[in-house]
Amino acid sequence: MVTIKQIAERLGVSISTVSKGLNGASDISPELCQTILDTAVEMGYQTKRMKRADSKKLCIFVSNMDYESANHFAYDVILGFKQAAFRDEWSVTTLPVTYHFQNQEKYDTYMLKNGYSGAFFLGFSLLDGWIHQLENTTMATVLLDNAIKTNPHVAYVGTDSYEGIDAAVDHLISLGHRKIAFLNGSGHSMITEVRQQAFFESMSAHNVPAIPSLVVYGRYDAEVAQEYVPSFLEQGATAILCGTDIIAYGVLKECERLGYRVPQDISVIGADDLPLSAHMDVALTTIRQNRVQLGKLAYLALDGVMNQVPISKTLLRPQLIVRNSTAKVVDR
Amino acid sequence: MVTIKQIAERLGVSISTVSKGLNGASDISPELCQTILDTAVEMGYQTKRMKRADSKKLCIFVSNMDYESANHFAYDVILGFKQAAFRDEWSVTTLPVTYHFQNQEKYDTYMLKNGYSGAFFLGFSLLDGWIHQLENTTMATVLLDNAIKTNPHVAYVGTDSYEGIDAAVDHLISLGHRKIAFLNGSGHSMITEVRQQAFFESMSAHNVPAIPSLVVYGRYDAEVAQEYVPSFLEQGATAILCGTDIIAYGVLKECERLGYRVPQDISVIGADDLPLSAHMDVALTTIRQNRVQLGKLAYLALDGVMNQVPISKTLLRPQLIVRNSTAKVVDR
Repeated sequence: MVTIKQIAERLGVSISTVSKGLNGASDISPELCQTILDTAVEMGYQTKRMKRADSKKLCIFVSNMDYESANHFAYDVILGFKQAAFRDEWSVTTLPVTYHFQNQEKYDTYMLKNGYSGAFFLGFSLLDGWIHQLENTTMATVLLDNAIKTNPHVAYVGTDSYEGIDAAVDHLISLGHRKIAFLNGSGHSMITEVRQQAFFESMSAHNVPAIPSLVVYGRYDAEVAQEYVPSFLEQGATAILCGTDIIAYGVLKECERLGYRVPQDISVIGADDLPLSAHMDVALTTIRQNRVQLGKLAYLALDGVMNQVPISKTLLRPQLIVRNSTAKVVDR
Repeated sequence: MVTIKQIAERLGVSISTVSKGLNGASDISPELCQTILDTAVEMGYQTKRMKRADSKKLCIFVSNMDYESANHFAYDVILGFKQAAFRDEWSVTTLPVTYHFQNQEKYDTYMLKNGYSGAFFLGFSLLDGWIHQLENTTMATVLLDNAIKTNPHVAYVGTDSYEGIDAAVDHLISLGHRKIAFLNGSGHSMITEVRQQAFFESMSAHNVPAIPSLVVYGRYDAEVAQEYVPSFLEQGATAILCGTDIIAYGVLKECERLGYRVPQDISVIGADDLPLSAHMDVALTTIRQNRVQLGKLAYLALDGVMNQVPISKTLLRPQLIVRNSTAKVVDR
């Protein structure tokens, strides 16, 4: 069990300072207070109240995603959610749910039976049974990267795709690129369609016409690069923007296989900023979604929905992280 | 000064219940607790901590808007903001600011000098000097119906225009209307452009082509109806969707002047649901923005930005309120 002393040691402050932070005392700064709370959650510390059997309970349901290690996208999202929920003394359970489980048990029933006041859905797709039940649920629910129309109990949280893609396009165009390819994730999902539209809009706002044959829906894996990169290069693309970092890893590899150097011959940009991306052979320029912040935002949205504020959607600002995979365009 | 006793009388509960609610005791329901807090704020009750000179302070700046009476749009927005902020023991000041004042005093300087931790901007337009300073401010700020690009300290809060307009269009089309006019507010503002696009998108999603000459930017007043309604009627429009309730009031009057009965000859829909709208001679069908909820959402967004969660935007779900100004289409 984690103790206050361990938290104090990790932060290099006194035990009484940690105690003040956990109790929100007014004689330490709000920033330090937040840092203490965030660290306590990260280390698994629980207040007495959270340990009580009748404590206030929230659940994070995870489908189609790993979340156990810090390299997984969901890991920090869950951490951020817990850190924000901790401030209001919620205890948070994380639960992976299979398709089979979702078909056996109704979502609302499961929530009621287990005494959860609200839930955060991570990684769910249209193939998940519970997604369809959200159209009529009365349970306060927040979805990552997925929207349910009109139900006031369900909010959508995500990253502002337009702002992220616009920053990436702006960066490439300022480096002289004009023939920019966009290798998106799988089609037929709300989030990929929004990103596709954002790419066309941003190019048009920069007065550089997007070339339709360079803008494709792919898949959310690295192997998809083998199917599209050869054609992009043949058509003279000088930069490839990718729907995720995972796709970008595949693109880096495929460019190398075809004898193109990144960034001298071709620039590559990812999206997400996974922990590995800074440590690739060519450190990846990418549109960062701050996953801890995304988790905190999900809690804020859930707090709203639980308090009868029907949020439709709330979006986090992304940030373009420029590393070594982008450079000035050179005529090939 | 408001006392706990007065709050108890207003709600018809005991003094000890009010006291529990104000202190967030765990043996009353969260709903009752929220009602007590909301009522306390509405009545102007202040906790001891809020009255201390060093209390945590937020400011609501209002420009170009009245807010003193319940008939004004801003009145309930401010109330909702204060109700949500109360939960975290913020004291909130409401301050009207003129163009002159904004030119004399820098925004960041004013915030620092007065010890405000964050601010909510209501009614500001591009003519307000402080709006332009928001591009570089480091003060946590939330704007209603206005967006500032990329600054992580500034969030935009509003109502989901697409969802509201889509519900209105859906309602009209289900009543058989096809020639639907849209009399929007003034152009060159983000929010009117978003609504214009939402109207075209929703019509197209319903497979009813929008008629460009029936879709116009007007102004945010009732008189604008005189300029556009005659032409709408000549072109055979059977329904007029308006950018605000105020515009709709003008449309109702102009239709009457021209000898058209609402809703027998023409259907009219507003947006906002101002207090008067239910009490017009013909009670107005309208897209409600719940102003109290909008204020609460603004506080949630500010809470996020103050805690280093850079929110780009957060939107409230609107609700179509069907009254007497819409009916089945009849051939004229």
